[in-house]
Amino acid sequence: MRIGVLTAGGDCPGLNAVIRSVVHRALTGHGDEVIGFEDGFKGLLDGHYRPLDLNAVSGILPRGGTILGSARLERDRLREAAESSAELAKQYGIDALIPIGGEGTLTASRMLSDAGMPVVGVPKTIDNDISGTDRTFGFDTAVMVATEAIDRLKTTAESHQRVMVVEVMGRHAGWIALESGMAGGAHGICLPERRFQVEDLVKMVEERFSRGKKFAVVCVAEGAHPAEGSMDYAKGAIDQFGHERFEGIGNRLASELELRLGKEARPVILGHVQRGGTPTAYDRVLATRFGWHAVEAAHRGEFGMMTALRGTDVIMVPLAEAVAQLKTVPERRMYEAESVF
Amino acid sequence: MRIGVLTAGGDCPGLNAVIRSVVHRALTGHGDEVIGFEDGFKGLLDGHYRPLDLNAVSGILPRGGTILGSARLERDRLREAAESSAELAKQYGIDALIPIGGEGTLTASRMLSDAGMPVVGVPKTIDNDISGTDRTFGFDTAVMVATEAIDRLKTTAESHQRVMVVEVMGRHAGWIALESGMAGGAHGICLPERRFQVEDLVKMVEERFSRGKKFAVVCVAEGAHPAEGSMDYAKGAIDQFGHERFEGIGNRLASELELRLGKEARPVILGHVQRGGTPTAYDRVLATRFGWHAVEAAHRGEFGMMTALRGTDVIMVPLAEAVAQLKTVPERRMYEAESVF
Amino acid sequence: MRIGVLTAGGDCPGLNAVIRSVVHRALTGHGDEVIGFEDGFKGLLDGHYRPLDLNAVSGILPRGGTILGSARLERDRLREAAESSAELAKQYGIDALIPIGGEGTLTASRMLSDAGMPVVGVPKTIDNDISGTDRTFGFDTAVMVATEAIDRLKTTAESHQRVMVVEVMGRHAGWIALESGMAGGAHGICLPERRFQVEDLVKMVEERFSRGKKFAVVCVAEGAHPAEGSMDYAKGAIDQFGHERFEGIGNRLASELELRLGKEARPVILGHVQRGGTPTAYDRVLATRFGWHAVEAAHRGEFGMMTALRGTDVIMVPLAEAVAQLKTVPERRMYEAESVF
Amino acid sequence: MRIGVLTAGGDCPGLNAVIRSVVHRALTGHGDEVIGFEDGFKGLLDGHYRPLDLNAVSGILPRGGTILGSARLERDRLREAAESSAELAKQYGIDALIPIGGEGTLTASRMLSDAGMPVVGVPKTIDNDISGTDRTFGFDTAVMVATEAIDRLKTTAESHQRVMVVEVMGRHAGWIALESGMAGGAHGICLPERRFQVEDLVKMVEERFSRGKKFAVVCVAEGAHPAEGSMDYAKGAIDQFGHERFEGIGNRLASELELRLGKEARPVILGHVQRGGTPTAYDRVLATRFGWHAVEAAHRGEFGMMTALRGTDVIMVPLAEAVAQLKTVPERRMYEAESVF
Repeated sequence: MRIGVLTAGGDCPGLNAVIRSVVHRALTGHGDEVIGFEDGFKGLLDGHYRPLDLNAVSGILPRGGTILGSARLERDRLREAAESSAELAKQYGIDALIPIGGEGTLTASRMLSDAGMPVVGVPKTIDNDISGTDRTFGFDTAVMVATEAIDRLKTTAESHQRVMVVEVMGRHAGWIALESGMAGGAHGICLPERRFQVEDLVKMVEERFSRGKKFAVVCVAEGAHPAEGSMDYAKGAIDQFGHERFEGIGNRLASELELRLGKEARPVILGHVQRGGTPTAYDRVLATRFGWHAVEAAHRGEFGMMTALRGTDVIMVPLAEAVAQLKTVPERRMYEAESVF
Repeated sequence: MRIGVLTAGGDCPGLNAVIRSVVHRALTGHGDEVIGFEDGFKGLLDGHYRPLDLNAVSGILPRGGTILGSARLERDRLREAAESSAELAKQYGIDALIPIGGEGTLTASRMLSDAGMPVVGVPKTIDNDISGTDRTFGFDTAVMVATEAIDRLKTTAESHQRVMVVEVMGRHAGWIALESGMAGGAHGICLPERRFQVEDLVKMVEERFSRGKKFAVVCVAEGAHPAEGSMDYAKGAIDQFGHERFEGIGNRLASELELRLGKEARPVILGHVQRGGTPTAYDRVLATRFGWHAVEAAHRGEFGMMTALRGTDVIMVPLAEAVAQLKTVPERRMYEAESVF
Repeated sequence: MRIGVLTAGGDCPGLNAVIRSVVHRALTGHGDEVIGFEDGFKGLLDGHYRPLDLNAVSGILPRGGTILGSARLERDRLREAAESSAELAKQYGIDALIPIGGEGTLTASRMLSDAGMPVVGVPKTIDNDISGTDRTFGFDTAVMVATEAIDRLKTTAESHQRVMVVEVMGRHAGWIALESGMAGGAHGICLPERRFQVEDLVKMVEERFSRGKKFAVVCVAEGAHPAEGSMDYAKGAIDQFGHERFEGIGNRLASELELRLGKEARPVILGHVQRGGTPTAYDRVLATRFGWHAVEAAHRGEFGMMTALRGTDVIMVPLAEAVAQLKTVPERRMYEAESVF
Repeated sequence: MRIGVLTAGGDCPGLNAVIRSVVHRALTGHGDEVIGFEDGFKGLLDGHYRPLDLNAVSGILPRGGTILGSARLERDRLREAAESSAELAKQYGIDALIPIGGEGTLTASRMLSDAGMPVVGVPKTIDNDISGTDRTFGFDTAVMVATEAIDRLKTTAESHQRVMVVEVMGRHAGWIALESGMAGGAHGICLPERRFQVEDLVKMVEERFSRGKKFAVVCVAEGAHPAEGSMDYAKGAIDQFGHERFEGIGNRLASELELRLGKEARPVILGHVQRGGTPTAYDRVLATRFGWHAVEAAHRGEFGMMTALRGTDVIMVPLAEAVAQLKTVPERRMYEAESVF
């Protein structure tokens, strides 16, 4: 068998672990050949690829990033790819394509699959928001990085009687905020899934100060929003192009809390440190298993599917199911966490 | 409600997170009272306990160990505890007891429960070998520590053309060896679940050297055993009391490989660093959820049960089921990992 | 002897290690008594203090923050403290005061010392900008945190062909940027000590892209400034109060580079994660030595001095010398680092 | 100029950082050529080398090990190297040789230098025992790894009322034990520089238990020795070849303490995890500076010297001085640490 592999979308710890695992399983388990397309679907369309042997993937397991590069592809070119899907497979002589990517990539993969490309997808997102799988690799690393940051910020907040607002990733789903907030013991957690009342956060902080705990840490997802009319003090700043720039909910919320509480509140925007670097052991194991199962699925001819974690098992689920809707934080998980506002 | 909590058995990262979570949920969610028994069941029998309020559990979430202490109890005294189970509950005025512990503790908990104590167990083991739950807290931390060690050892092995044998915990189940071996990219993994042939490891190392990869790392569970007659070079050493002391499979296997291969082989015994210290974010979240659900179960009157992770949900399972048999690494997981010998 | 200790100024990993060391040395080495003033000089003026025995400092060595709290004091109240310096010493019956703090605190300490308080200072700053000492504790931790962030960002920059701009602490001295930039292998480093030409950074990035290295990481101190007229594309945003808010050199430089290069450039502002949390081993050792030597100096009657690292030795230097001028990065260190712009 | 570089002796975090720095400075700063000899002096004698350009050292800064490999050379072949020193330089056309290594390597380097090879040495040892330099790279990483282990072990010791004995590296000098013991807050530290009385350790532990601190951690250098006749309970075990195998001071001391105290004592032998893996920021900076200065020294024609840290500066010192005697822990540092036995 000849297998193509590519990585698309944003960076995510564990991408290299999947690539390595695909190569290992395909070569030593089945005697296959593997080629890697460069910079995602671009490489597939433009014919940029290289053969991947054991040496090519030696030592990459603990490394962040992707040795194949990644790039976002414009919609038009994706359509182009979909239309020539069957020819592309023939052109490269590949019996299976394993795209590793997030929601956008999996949607594209489904288009390619529908158009005749034998596709086995591997889901990837630090946000953990892909349906059909209990967890995705990269998420555990992002939560770990955010938790370590909260751990560090807490000591400062406590020593200085301050409120710290930590903004973590998560535009549409608040999994990172939920789990790093729980792991770090944040006193307030704000998610995209539920509009928060600033007033409630103010009360929480005041209640803490009143019983002698003179600090608080709030963990807010970048996609969290205050309830309409609830955040009226702080105003965003306007840049030269007339729109708010480098202003996010973290900065705004810290401003608002400081104005309302009359106490120091400091924002910390974690940003891209959450999506790069060496993956946790958890993410390496999950990524390695996904790569292994993707190759097995290809050999069983299970196309149009993607790997998924279900309990302790890795199973295959239809791509259609995976991209049908975003996996957001359900009410019962917020209830459990207690400090979700 | 008045709830008693205790920790028993070996150390495990996340114990404090459970205690904190029990106290938080019970006090702020239900207006309960919580008391903590000291040094496991000993405290229950000897009347050593203290009230736990929010201040008592402040700041303990990221800390290893257990603020309540832990101790193993002799079998006789456990029977004593079981016999006076109902009286003990009455004596302390507790409506629920939440023991946090491993297989032994859960067995004892079941005895107490059968004898009339309203028990909700919380499973704990770095070995991940308790049935009925997908994972236990502490395991992820142990795997992370072992993986970081393998990462470090690999660079030395490579630079010095050496074989490194890393012995990790796992007397009866090889989960830590399996997952840290996979995450660290160990070239050989030996588990208690399958007797290994030293000859196969020798061949693997020689094959690696022959294709220019002049080093290898073997990850071996402390409970792994060579097949009968397979390890005949290295002999154990006899101490003053006539038995082998401080000799484990790691030391023995390194000896054997060095003698057979004629190449340097070095053992590293990770030992207790795997079971202490600050828990990973994953373990903190799982431990926190277990504590929360244990309190909820107590309020629903679901006794004789323990908390368990099933997919993404925390559910309750009967203690009887959990202790019926050890959860060992199944064949299919070994097959997936590829480097299990 | 009766010794008072206090911590003032911003948070800094190692404060607790100094406090612990002072208490250990004073109590077990000399049979002294130690009291800790709360929230810096405020506690000294307002009479908020508590006795510190071995139990009070148990377990605090690896913890960030300060068990004594810290607060900035207004200038007026500091003058008040200085004026009543001798009386304060008498009032509390202290034979020595050990203030642990940065440049401001040491200046205040000198005033108190001149006015009759027997003071032994301990310098503290994550910025490493205090003269008279080779290094200060807290700096190593800050550099480590910043280096780990750069390590993580590099993999993302590389996979996505991006420029990453990391803003680290250092308003007046660029030590953190210099050392984390070197340790992380940043391709450009900008310091407060030298105005940079954006044009030079643009050339460096273009040169890298032209030889196939399609990414770059720039590490910039928060106090770095572009040469006059060198950064003219990106404009700061104006908030509701008419001044630039939450806009720093990191955001601005990323904007400017993106506009000039026509390539994605992303800012990451590390902020407060650099100044809290568990200290590195290096900082714990230095902090512990400083505490030990401060007590010894007090017993030798060497007041008006502060502890300092000189080579491998801890010595005492006059407070006057330490606060005379800021220790900035000298030209020869920039020359060595090569990538300073 | 044409510069040769090689790494010899045991693994040490920072070796790759030196190699990278030599190549960067030589190529971009001076337009030199650099070749790397493989497996230490072996490569020099056997003609195994490769050119090193910027690509060859790309991405190696944070990696442990050495891309050039390392091997110990037999005394005879070293003599051979020394005898043909001048010819070797001519043969490879090198104007300078930069060997990076420990005490043995530097002694060999001195022999080569005396025999006509233009040598600039770079000292390397995780043990920090080379004279003439305040610190060596690799040491900070080793101390960090040991400190993290002690942090983890402490929580277990405390929860289980146990004595933990941690054996760290240091055959002839106790720097790692001293600094990790201080940083980890070990209650007892044993060094090669001073024979310890087991009885004193026993008293210390008993005193702790008597005042309610029911655990203790002892940090012992592998080269530490008990005073004659002081450790008479535990006996070493004899292996099949008639000598003690895999028994070190850590195991023996734990045995002895358990027998004397009647309390659980557990040994942990950290071993090779201390000498591999990614270097700390401190070690990366020091290693990078050493590489830079070695190239500068070569260009100034300062041969027979090695780089050294003196205060905050990197200077050159004669190789002769550096290898004259081992740098051991002086009495005053033991006095400062307080817990050295």
